[in-house]
Amino acid sequence: MRISELARQAEISVATVKYYLREGLLQGGVVTGPNQASYDADHLHRLRLIRALREVGGLEIRAIRAVVAAIEDEGLSRHELLGVAQRALDTGPHDRSPSPEVDDARRAVDEFIAGLGWNVATDAPGRRELTDALVALARIGRHGGTALFRPYAAAADAMAAWEVRTIPTGEQRSEAVEQLVVSTVVFEAVFAALRRLAHEHHSSLRYAPSPD
Amino acid sequence: MRISELARQAEISVATVKYYLREGLLQGGVVTGPNQASYDADHLHRLRLIRALREVGGLEIRAIRAVVAAIEDEGLSRHELLGVAQRALDTGPHDRSPSPEVDDARRAVDEFIAGLGWNVATDAPGRRELTDALVALARIGRHGGTALFRPYAAAADAMAAWEVRTIPTGEQRSEAVEQLVVSTVVFEAVFAALRRLAHEHHSSLRYAPSPD
Repeated sequence: MRISELARQAEISVATVKYYLREGLLQGGVVTGPNQASYDADHLHRLRLIRALREVGGLEIRAIRAVVAAIEDEGLSRHELLGVAQRALDTGPHDRSPSPEVDDARRAVDEFIAGLGWNVATDAPGRRELTDALVALARIGRHGGTALFRPYAAAADAMAAWEVRTIPTGEQRSEAVEQLVVSTVVFEAVFAALRRLAHEHHSSLRYAPSPD
Repeated sequence: MRISELARQAEISVATVKYYLREGLLQGGVVTGPNQASYDADHLHRLRLIRALREVGGLEIRAIRAVVAAIEDEGLSRHELLGVAQRALDTGPHDRSPSPEVDDARRAVDEFIAGLGWNVATDAPGRRELTDALVALARIGRHGGTALFRPYAAAADAMAAWEVRTIPTGEQRSEAVEQLVVSTVVFEAVFAALRRLAHEHHSSLRYAPSPD
């Protein structure tokens, strides 16, 4: 298909498609004549991925380029590819100053994850996020340590197992990454919203005066 | 106890305690002499709540004042009180321009929540968040509608039921609110981090080459 048709199917402007071509995010089409090229379903998939990364993941062009480069690196396993996408999505603070309190919390988090038997990289952003939470909890007098995380870890394990299992096997690498990004970002927000609504519901069952 | 002891026990400065007194966030002590007052465990609880709302919830003074006013309004049920705290925690965008797409999504979300049998207010922020997610999903070609939310709703229901059940019954109103704020904000971050780590683990089981 021509670039105009590609843009129409991707629901973005031709100018934006050209911008992604210039930035190296979208692979070039097959040249069919002077100033003309032909695009196919792979290009459409890529545009859909870029859109998901931008609109849903809120990623900047530089981060998207890293994800795209990983997809094109055939030497990376799917697992490594998903790791690249996860790290691109991590926009948390990285400038925590070291302190014995934080060091202790980090050690506790690493032990906790090892105890779960989870195979995750030592630089996975989630380790730092859990460390921050543990420090915040201790500061307001919740000294339960990582034991406080246990019921959440069980729920997260069940949810992630189901989410990873439901990614279709036959999929392209770029689609697997899109699935991960969407599932990570959108369904994280969905779950948080549902949990707050469920809090309201269950607190009404527990605390509200029953109607007569 | 005197203000210096109160500050020490709350692990904040005397200047900060005085600031909260001036702002009306902390109730005054019992006057025991010129320029002297006595404080008790209720003041300490309040300071701990303010700290949780500020450091963990990231709330501004104005929002904290709304929560504190609700705590002091004995006419509010605990359930209403938790609703005030939840709305104070909602910092999402409120300026969405109306469109038929958004209106349809909102209707679908309201029907979905009604179908769950959840008793939540029509202005609960979670309804808007789910609406935004539904619109974002449709824009990247996921047209599954609210059926996509169903497994997450089941998990959220189980988690919230357990969280609300484990708030001790004998507690002060302010402690119940602190529990909710901490549980909502910190454990939301904890669960999100654990889910990402679990994604990495389960994707390694599914995609990584097995070691020989």
